[in-house]
Amino acid sequence: MASTLIRGKYVITSPKADGSDLLTDGAVLEENGFIQDVGAFEQLRQRHPDAKEMGGNQYIVLPGLVNAHHHGNGLSPLHLGVPDGPLEPWIVQRMGSKPVDIYLSAAYAAIKLLQSGTTTVMLNQSAGAAARLDEDSQAMLGGFRDAGLRVCYSLGYRHQNRIVYEDDATFLKRLPAEVSRAVQVILDAGHIPADEYFRFYDRIIPALTEERDRVRVAMSPSNLQWCSDGLLRDIKAYATSNKLPIHMHLLETVYQKEYALRTFGKSAVAHLADLQFLGTDVSIAHAVWLTEADIRMVADSGTQVCHNASSNLKLQSGIAPVQPLLSRGVTVALGTDSMSLNDDDDLFQDMRLVAQLHRNSGLDSTAPTADQVLTMATVNGAKATGFEHEVGRLLPGYRADIVLLRLDRIAQSPIDEVAGPVEALVYLADGRDVDTVMIGGQVVVQDGRVTSLNREEIAARLKENVSQKPTAEEVRKADVIAEVIPYIKEFYREWATYDLQPHYRYNSRA
Amino acid sequence: MASTLIRGKYVITSPKADGSDLLTDGAVLEENGFIQDVGAFEQLRQRHPDAKEMGGNQYIVLPGLVNAHHHGNGLSPLHLGVPDGPLEPWIVQRMGSKPVDIYLSAAYAAIKLLQSGTTTVMLNQSAGAAARLDEDSQAMLGGFRDAGLRVCYSLGYRHQNRIVYEDDATFLKRLPAEVSRAVQVILDAGHIPADEYFRFYDRIIPALTEERDRVRVAMSPSNLQWCSDGLLRDIKAYATSNKLPIHMHLLETVYQKEYALRTFGKSAVAHLADLQFLGTDVSIAHAVWLTEADIRMVADSGTQVCHNASSNLKLQSGIAPVQPLLSRGVTVALGTDSMSLNDDDDLFQDMRLVAQLHRNSGLDSTAPTADQVLTMATVNGAKATGFEHEVGRLLPGYRADIVLLRLDRIAQSPIDEVAGPVEALVYLADGRDVDTVMIGGQVVVQDGRVTSLNREEIAARLKENVSQKPTAEEVRKADVIAEVIPYIKEFYREWATYDLQPHYRYNSRA
Repeated sequence: MASTLIRGKYVITSPKADGSDLLTDGAVLEENGFIQDVGAFEQLRQRHPDAKEMGGNQYIVLPGLVNAHHHGNGLSPLHLGVPDGPLEPWIVQRMGSKPVDIYLSAAYAAIKLLQSGTTTVMLNQSAGAAARLDEDSQAMLGGFRDAGLRVCYSLGYRHQNRIVYEDDATFLKRLPAEVSRAVQVILDAGHIPADEYFRFYDRIIPALTEERDRVRVAMSPSNLQWCSDGLLRDIKAYATSNKLPIHMHLLETVYQKEYALRTFGKSAVAHLADLQFLGTDVSIAHAVWLTEADIRMVADSGTQVCHNASSNLKLQSGIAPVQPLLSRGVTVALGTDSMSLNDDDDLFQDMRLVAQLHRNSGLDSTAPTADQVLTMATVNGAKATGFEHEVGRLLPGYRADIVLLRLDRIAQSPIDEVAGPVEALVYLADGRDVDTVMIGGQVVVQDGRVTSLNREEIAARLKENVSQKPTAEEVRKADVIAEVIPYIKEFYREWATYDLQPHYRYNSRA
Repeated sequence: MASTLIRGKYVITSPKADGSDLLTDGAVLEENGFIQDVGAFEQLRQRHPDAKEMGGNQYIVLPGLVNAHHHGNGLSPLHLGVPDGPLEPWIVQRMGSKPVDIYLSAAYAAIKLLQSGTTTVMLNQSAGAAARLDEDSQAMLGGFRDAGLRVCYSLGYRHQNRIVYEDDATFLKRLPAEVSRAVQVILDAGHIPADEYFRFYDRIIPALTEERDRVRVAMSPSNLQWCSDGLLRDIKAYATSNKLPIHMHLLETVYQKEYALRTFGKSAVAHLADLQFLGTDVSIAHAVWLTEADIRMVADSGTQVCHNASSNLKLQSGIAPVQPLLSRGVTVALGTDSMSLNDDDDLFQDMRLVAQLHRNSGLDSTAPTADQVLTMATVNGAKATGFEHEVGRLLPGYRADIVLLRLDRIAQSPIDEVAGPVEALVYLADGRDVDTVMIGGQVVVQDGRVTSLNREEIAARLKENVSQKPTAEEVRKADVIAEVIPYIKEFYREWATYDLQPHYRYNSRA
């Protein structure tokens, strides 16, 4: 049996919030896609004389990172001509942007993720048209499969309040008749009956069983305002009976907070608690507008949170109360939402943003430690994606998802002598320092270049794909969308105008 | 006369908040350190047939960036074993960290700045001991001179409230007698009589005149709580009569806000207005805790603000109200404070942080545009550093401080077709994309490598310098400092505990 001994000046074996376990001049032994042995390099070298060797003294070896919220987009909306801006109009503008080949987009996303050290992704695809569910999901999964990434696949579904947070028919009446009719056509084209959603899962669960080493499945009601109570109950029941985790957006913006208050007379979290929807099987993405009471309910129910720091800044959503969540013991994972700080899906850079963004002012305030942030991006992400106790650590029995990071840049400073390697990689490293990535024992990045796919070729094909002249229908659609935007802004004008007491204090008007 | 024609696919000639001026397939002609001509490449090529050529179609050409607040530190405190944390204890902890060779530290800082496209720096050195003022300033200036950077040199000075924001003698009484005596020794060693500060400027103003092309001089009372009213009046008078700008820290933390309220019964800005200290010659760094009334006074007096986004996050200071400042028409420049997002002094990365950090939630909120952010990091920085109308733009008569950025990474996406090059460089580029840097017509970075100094050699010497075993005296000093920290935290326990109304709303407790 071929085996590989991976050596590092530092080997981070088990990220832990209160201080990660690590080895100096350590090694891990990979065999058959799993980690078989971990320890001091010299001892492992003696125990496994036939293993080929990888890495060395100029590397930090760490578990592959987990991006726990991603939509599989290789190009960010910015790349497609939709500038960052507040979510509610932005998400409708996106409906009018040029369609992109799903396979190429997914493959390019996977390449960027691999190249910057991410090995597992919560791949949350937005459902397109009913007739294309299988085709679209195969294209998306195909891009990630060809790249060799590990994924938890979830299909995001919504069936109401799709333009603003009120009934579609009611909102359409606010529009001029001609615009209203055109929007109705767009909505009809994207309509998927709820039973189609469940039938899709009926098909995909067995179909993906043979890829279970690499692929897990989750359900995904997109967000509270986009799903009826009945649908949420049905999804929870289906997920429970099929032992699937549930991943959903929640409280991304202040308007989503307001929607729940207006609709249910209580917070979004309180309403989900009433529906008995919350639980250890549920991860909620964003969670920016959780109140203190919400945080207690999230914590008590064991619900997980996926924090998307860069996306929340870009879309003017706000800053999630990560510190209060951590202090209540909530499991917080990290995601880029296909909207990373540098639009390159580099989770190292987003880890650093998280490490610095939640440094609430004042001497009594705590800041997330480097160990906490690395734990979010590994162990906690593994839990959120259904790979708990399988990835996120470099321990015997875990899958061999391993990143080798060059120490060059870090070593130009004496940080490794005065701070730890975890601090070094959270505060100083980035995706361009990634040298080698292994997933399940397969090398997918070597010398900083993805080997499973040809980046230049995929990029060129993707560029050609999005550079095609829009069709007459695409132009019409974009024009209609542009006409709707002012009505969306008008709709929310009186929403959430009250004063708020922030979790953090960053500045003061008086 | 040797001249150089610098060509770019895009040439950003004049950053402007409401839309920068730029050329497609443009060029600038450098001669004798100045820009002599700007226009379409083909026309310039014809007009200047003898000029040698640089750049080409794979570059964005832009003005060198200006870092308007920097302390000349090549290693961040993190590198020296002082982790990021709230300013008040952190700044005292820094007094106990290992001293670093000033020349090597400055040279390494300058290398990092150059390599990431910064060409002008507000170099704010903290005054050490009275007897070493000349020696220390020569070492600092020497590092930047050898690198070839343009600087505005200012010596930061303080003479009171140096451990906490109360009289040193009063605070010392809070300490155990032995600790108190040891701290007194440390304070005495760093004491510089005010007249020494002015005599230093008497010497340095004429001494630096011959370097005036590259070096400007500013005065720098460190911060309000560290300077008496008399000293502030004297500095203002001296600066006015010598036509020097003034650069000072102000309202970096909530405790500095509180100090002014407790001491003067009014805000720090109102007190400076009473002293007739504010004005177009003054730039204030940080300005995190400006109230709405403060912002009006800053705007009305023409005082400039230097925003240090990454430093303010790292030191848990807060987030400056940049949007209210911009909407009042205040000139805002950018600095890294030797505490950049990635601890590498890459202002591209800090520009991106600024572009994303001030995206206040809500549909009515505005976000800084890429053009606004680039203007802060060029034109506005030029003003703050005393080089207004000399650097920050690529126009005839300006100094030839020019950055050539490779389009490779950016061009992998179609962004240059759907967004502008300014968006591309603010949202996607970073210092590693910098290919060539020219300052005053001299090439100081070529193929991404600094040519004026040897990075590896300086890094190795710096590493050796800080790796030396601390002396017995240094160990004693660090021990004393460690004993003082709990008293500092105790001192501020009752300070600034009231509720605050934030400028921005990012989340909500209720």
